[in-house]
Amino acid sequence: MLIPPRNQVKRTLIIGAAMLGLTLPIAATANEPAAEKPKQIILVIADGMGFPYLSAYRYFKDGRNATMATDIESTIFDDYLLGAASTYPADDTLVTDSAAGATALATGVKTYNGAISVDAEGNPIPTIMQRARTQGWQTAAIATTKVTHATPASFFTHAPSRRMEDEIADQFAEVDENGQPIFDLLLGSGRKHFVREDADGNRVSHLRTLNNRGVRVIESYEQLQTQQRLPLIGLFFDDSFPYVIDDEKRLEMMTREGLRLLGNNEKPFVLMIEASMVDWCGHANDIACAMHEMAELDELMMFLQEYAEGRDDTQIILTADHSTGGLTLGADGDYKFRAGDLHRIGRGLRTMAVDLNNMPAIDWDAYIDEYLPFPLSTDHQTALSDVAASTSERRRAEIQEILVDIVRYHTGAGWTTGGHTGEDVPVIAIGPWSDNFRGTQDHTDIAKKLFEWVQN
Amino acid sequence: MLIPPRNQVKRTLIIGAAMLGLTLPIAATANEPAAEKPKQIILVIADGMGFPYLSAYRYFKDGRNATMATDIESTIFDDYLLGAASTYPADDTLVTDSAAGATALATGVKTYNGAISVDAEGNPIPTIMQRARTQGWQTAAIATTKVTHATPASFFTHAPSRRMEDEIADQFAEVDENGQPIFDLLLGSGRKHFVREDADGNRVSHLRTLNNRGVRVIESYEQLQTQQRLPLIGLFFDDSFPYVIDDEKRLEMMTREGLRLLGNNEKPFVLMIEASMVDWCGHANDIACAMHEMAELDELMMFLQEYAEGRDDTQIILTADHSTGGLTLGADGDYKFRAGDLHRIGRGLRTMAVDLNNMPAIDWDAYIDEYLPFPLSTDHQTALSDVAASTSERRRAEIQEILVDIVRYHTGAGWTTGGHTGEDVPVIAIGPWSDNFRGTQDHTDIAKKLFEWVQN
Repeated sequence: MLIPPRNQVKRTLIIGAAMLGLTLPIAATANEPAAEKPKQIILVIADGMGFPYLSAYRYFKDGRNATMATDIESTIFDDYLLGAASTYPADDTLVTDSAAGATALATGVKTYNGAISVDAEGNPIPTIMQRARTQGWQTAAIATTKVTHATPASFFTHAPSRRMEDEIADQFAEVDENGQPIFDLLLGSGRKHFVREDADGNRVSHLRTLNNRGVRVIESYEQLQTQQRLPLIGLFFDDSFPYVIDDEKRLEMMTREGLRLLGNNEKPFVLMIEASMVDWCGHANDIACAMHEMAELDELMMFLQEYAEGRDDTQIILTADHSTGGLTLGADGDYKFRAGDLHRIGRGLRTMAVDLNNMPAIDWDAYIDEYLPFPLSTDHQTALSDVAASTSERRRAEIQEILVDIVRYHTGAGWTTGGHTGEDVPVIAIGPWSDNFRGTQDHTDIAKKLFEWVQN
Repeated sequence: MLIPPRNQVKRTLIIGAAMLGLTLPIAATANEPAAEKPKQIILVIADGMGFPYLSAYRYFKDGRNATMATDIESTIFDDYLLGAASTYPADDTLVTDSAAGATALATGVKTYNGAISVDAEGNPIPTIMQRARTQGWQTAAIATTKVTHATPASFFTHAPSRRMEDEIADQFAEVDENGQPIFDLLLGSGRKHFVREDADGNRVSHLRTLNNRGVRVIESYEQLQTQQRLPLIGLFFDDSFPYVIDDEKRLEMMTREGLRLLGNNEKPFVLMIEASMVDWCGHANDIACAMHEMAELDELMMFLQEYAEGRDDTQIILTADHSTGGLTLGADGDYKFRAGDLHRIGRGLRTMAVDLNNMPAIDWDAYIDEYLPFPLSTDHQTALSDVAASTSERRRAEIQEILVDIVRYHTGAGWTTGGHTGEDVPVIAIGPWSDNFRGTQDHTDIAKKLFEWVQN
């Protein structure tokens, strides 16, 4: 295990410090850096993960609703927290969306909400991945969402609108000026944008095209584990991934395999990993859902810490593009956050709402009792009865709103919005170059540092 | 100006670092520390100031609703941010109140909500001020609330309940085992707890008692500015202070005078300064109110930074006891935080509600137009008309709720609660010993460090 930054002293570097009586935590790992710049840059973006998610997750992991006099163990996020980043876009608002947020992290340039690595005039802005390729680096992205979604898209492609996911898929299938694919490794989902009919009804099959260009194309986790070479694209779902709370963790596994493949040659690499669905749970105001995505991120970071442990050329940075949902630990005048009770929630609230909406009302009690086992207030019972009898087109959404309110009432998780919020986000780093990210910075400063590093 | 931590390198301490290509921000000021421990410890507690308040204030200070492509200047909070602190109490909840939060910062011990430096059995826990006195240090507190309120009270007194403000005033009037007053400097408000009738109708005058014991007693800012010696108690209001948004800043002035008086002799000191009313604005869900209190805190921190600049024996720490109100920048699906428009709000919402409640309804339009000049939606107009005609006992509170909603709607400031929330709070420090506070820590860790420092 790497020693967390606060507890270590690189004694060879602090000649004189002891005489001054100083405690000097200096570089952020116990490893000496091998060179001026890292050769393995791993940028983890937890979409939507504002500061409250870190506090909430610590208590969720601990599993108690109250500690009385005993202490709560710190998480890996606590152990490596270095500072914060501001996230405002270049737009008519101070609150960013995921496209402008990802563009800032991918290019170092602020742009308007919705932009995929283009500026206000729609001109492409060079991304860290494109720069890295010109310098002979491998480039890779792993996400738990469609690779055409805002965050992975912004690292490799350019579009005036994040909605242009077909066009973004088209760009992923293109070759660069040397006739090479524009990525070495791309793992995520979104096959439907790669294999589709175009506006004229002609079949588009970018996966075949990529295959013909020497890119291995896979569609299952099992295939991933037997791969031996890059370039590789793995699209594991037609559309989005399921939520961790409804399915299984996968980000650590994808990353482990990805690093194995990137390690097959000596070339340096930039790897962007997105924990995409923290944001989705935030949009759904679903705290248990968010905590399970955070658990996946925790597992990923523990693995990355271990990976970096024996190395002197690897720098890991974790941040978010923005916070989502306006999460707070406590709501409606109640001084409580019942983190332990979150473990009793068995499915995502959206999934539950879909299931309930498709199920005879007579089965609702048993279903709710299994997956959301809180004693229901009279108000909540009445609301559920009413919506069960409803024929509204918004019935699914209305069911979900009631479920959100039940969880808020019982656990004290508060939300202000179904959208994003503009608070600064956490900055966490593991590796010899972590000191670059201390204190408060703008999100573009993180990208600018990466750009410095990939200059040969 | 001290150079912010991220931009400086103490070259004498990093022999060898340049060869390794490292950028090493080390200690947090440009000054060499004079000794192993500081001799002037200034702990600033911004009651209720969670992370969102720092982001919101940066945008409020900038004064624009959107920046388009230009950057926003960092604040002093940004420049010296070091990490975060967890705040959970030893109670049946993870969300602290100000008493348990202040006790943790004053004693290093977690306790139950409501406790003033006593443990679960009601036993007094030694405070940093009491320990400092036994070591020959001066002790001082400055607050923008009653000195009998939870935060200042927890640094000097002990009570099973924060509500026992008369008993807390009694303790402030006592002498220690050497017959000396228990503080050197105490500035705030709350005369009504010091001069009152007791349960039997007898007059209690602790201010006379203190005066007889050699403590100067003052009641105005003007008097403060002409004082020449300690011990001193200044209680500037019978009850609470007015809000900055309704009145004037005063915390920097009180601190400037306090430091002048503490500097009259060579004895080291611990000074606790509470920016008390950030929390009050948070409880009222009043963002403009909170921003004006933050502006006062900004002014204070700029002064303290200047004060520390020429010194090698002074350490400043700024943190919060908890976050209040569940503030987020953005609400209700709207991607906006109209920080510039907050400057158009002319009074605190509670003050406005009191004024409106006491004023003929015919004058409401002109009043609202002056102090809350936003175009009112039909819904808000109807709500105001309805409450104007109401005879409810809750009329003042109902008016305030409408005003809160108007501000939320126009500015995008979201709130989840009228109470506290359990997210980690910022940790900011200025001075040669700042590295002690990097990363994530528990709030009790801050106090434990102070206890180490006041051991001779």
